[in-house]
Amino acid sequence: MTIQRLSEAFYRRKIGQIQARMEAAGLDGMLLLDVPNVIYACGFFHTPSERPLGLYIPKSGEVALFVPLLELENAGASWVKDIRTYFEYPGETHPVEWMVQEAGAKRLGIDTLTVDVYQRLGGNVTVTPMVEQMRWIKEPEELALIEKAATYADTCLEYVLENAGAIIRDGGTELDILRACIGATAAKMKAEVGEIFNLRSSSVVGTVHSGPRAALPHGSPIERKPQIGEPMIAGIGASVGGYHAESGATFVIGEPKGDVMRCLEAAMECDLAGIKALRVGNTCTQVNEAALGVLREYGLGDAIRHRIGHGMGLQGHEGPWLAPGDNTPLVAGMVFSNEPGIYRPEIDGYRLIDSMIVTDGEAKVPSRFLANHPPEKRIIPI
Amino acid sequence: MTIQRLSEAFYRRKIGQIQARMEAAGLDGMLLLDVPNVIYACGFFHTPSERPLGLYIPKSGEVALFVPLLELENAGASWVKDIRTYFEYPGETHPVEWMVQEAGAKRLGIDTLTVDVYQRLGGNVTVTPMVEQMRWIKEPEELALIEKAATYADTCLEYVLENAGAIIRDGGTELDILRACIGATAAKMKAEVGEIFNLRSSSVVGTVHSGPRAALPHGSPIERKPQIGEPMIAGIGASVGGYHAESGATFVIGEPKGDVMRCLEAAMECDLAGIKALRVGNTCTQVNEAALGVLREYGLGDAIRHRIGHGMGLQGHEGPWLAPGDNTPLVAGMVFSNEPGIYRPEIDGYRLIDSMIVTDGEAKVPSRFLANHPPEKRIIPI
Repeated sequence: MTIQRLSEAFYRRKIGQIQARMEAAGLDGMLLLDVPNVIYACGFFHTPSERPLGLYIPKSGEVALFVPLLELENAGASWVKDIRTYFEYPGETHPVEWMVQEAGAKRLGIDTLTVDVYQRLGGNVTVTPMVEQMRWIKEPEELALIEKAATYADTCLEYVLENAGAIIRDGGTELDILRACIGATAAKMKAEVGEIFNLRSSSVVGTVHSGPRAALPHGSPIERKPQIGEPMIAGIGASVGGYHAESGATFVIGEPKGDVMRCLEAAMECDLAGIKALRVGNTCTQVNEAALGVLREYGLGDAIRHRIGHGMGLQGHEGPWLAPGDNTPLVAGMVFSNEPGIYRPEIDGYRLIDSMIVTDGEAKVPSRFLANHPPEKRIIPI
Repeated sequence: MTIQRLSEAFYRRKIGQIQARMEAAGLDGMLLLDVPNVIYACGFFHTPSERPLGLYIPKSGEVALFVPLLELENAGASWVKDIRTYFEYPGETHPVEWMVQEAGAKRLGIDTLTVDVYQRLGGNVTVTPMVEQMRWIKEPEELALIEKAATYADTCLEYVLENAGAIIRDGGTELDILRACIGATAAKMKAEVGEIFNLRSSSVVGTVHSGPRAALPHGSPIERKPQIGEPMIAGIGASVGGYHAESGATFVIGEPKGDVMRCLEAAMECDLAGIKALRVGNTCTQVNEAALGVLREYGLGDAIRHRIGHGMGLQGHEGPWLAPGDNTPLVAGMVFSNEPGIYRPEIDGYRLIDSMIVTDGEAKVPSRFLANHPPEKRIIPI
């Protein structure tokens, strides 16, 4: 299937849906300031900075983009015809105050505001997560982009499985493995989707951690050579047309030591429990409990450092959250990561990542690396 | 000079200064949530996510770091001894509500909040930019890091001047030039500061745009081969120990065409006017006017797309702003970019970048590329 940018028709449909919700909420206009919300409703990608950029949606009629002057030509290339500019930040008038004046709506909704700007506006607006929550449920066109992104994350892991052994034998480090797998995947993406997607909307990023460094859920890769018998985590995120997916695996370098295989199996069972629980009828927090419960059954409760997953779409991390405190009921079209993690400080760490889509039946899993490579196939010969 | 991380003594001094300001403001405690503010007051670098992370400073006594569980081991490596964790976001209790409970201050200040969290807290806190504004005036240790970062941004431009001709002759594009100059500079940084600074706090990034694409202030580099006679913009940002600096130049590929040299000279005169105006006694907006006035005198007013500059430090862009609407008086120790820009849609574009430090006398300019290479020396033989 040829992969396509989302069309003007998609954005016009989204705007119609936002207008219907505005009417239900008693709003005359909606100003979107959060970058992923702007992209969601009109497809305008830009380089965010302190300069506010807004999409204004009136209760009926055409939308307008409010942009700093330096985005004039970029915005002019969008399908939105009404482009209005302000010179600079901060300006004599705060850009958001100017946007509110331009909008002229009696009952105005805004998607996100900091307290200082809210107070400048005299509190005279309704801050509402309406559009962010619409983004939680993806349409088929959005899911196609996410599924494509998942294939690139898988490509990157396949590269690690095939090449990390040689890189390590040549004295290579975590960073060398990371650079090589990202470079190879980025080249493939560029060849396949480079013509229709620019750097802002399509990319691949990741981390590689080995041995005791794998015990840091948020450590950065370093010039460390993975050692024989150790687990090595590779976590990859890819985006196509602005939509994200993830795939991640824990490999073993040569002959596994100690209880390495048992931990890999516990993580895999946790992953499968997450997939199984991801069904309409369950809430987000229930999926988290079902998955993490497996790690506790394995006696690995002390090694848990984070929830099982997060929403994904135009943001790498977005709501809803497969975590305590999120009682959102699952709905078909929601997309989540599934990230079993086992972290044993100063010893080692394990993380798997799948991308999962809620359907009317069983969860769909567009990342295929884990299913295609059971734990014993993740041993990298050295 | 060997470059050093900022010391615990630096952070303890900063915390003492924050406590003195809290007392003057009638606050019993200050909770810092904004990432650069946390780094400023305690030096803890981390990977930001939706999970709030806070540094709590009581009016007297020791500080505490409030972190999500997955940052426990990273935070434990910091000099801060009191580390408290919450499991995950969102959690049964919002993490910021939990932090406010842990803080237990009667009159609590917070550096930044979104409206939704502010409302959760019942509006019962004081949102204040106090710490952000302290960051505007750098101490000698901070300036040393910024000056070092500027040398790497210069290194990157020297590489472009020396190698872009050969890359273009071999059929190379904007992206090839960018990858090569960033790669060479990153290797030098790694060799020189790699041992004491990790990937989170030291890096080099940039853009390269040629011909009509140079007319987009915020365009992304593409697979375009720069053509003979065209201007080519290279804008580089580097950070060392978390502190940023920039250096940027517009080169000419081979024999200059049309009024290319006149535009380069106008931009250089604008740069010098900005440096000259950056003196104690002037306000930020006055520097902007003095610099941009030069472009208008050259008849290039329509080609202006942005202010002359922004503050720099722990953020690449931070206050105060050399822009309309910012009447902040200049103070010795403030650091700014100086970015004359001329953008002629569908024709070409020009941008220069210097980094400037306010002193008690003339501005200090740690980026040296522009001063060392007058316009006629920026012609790349082809």
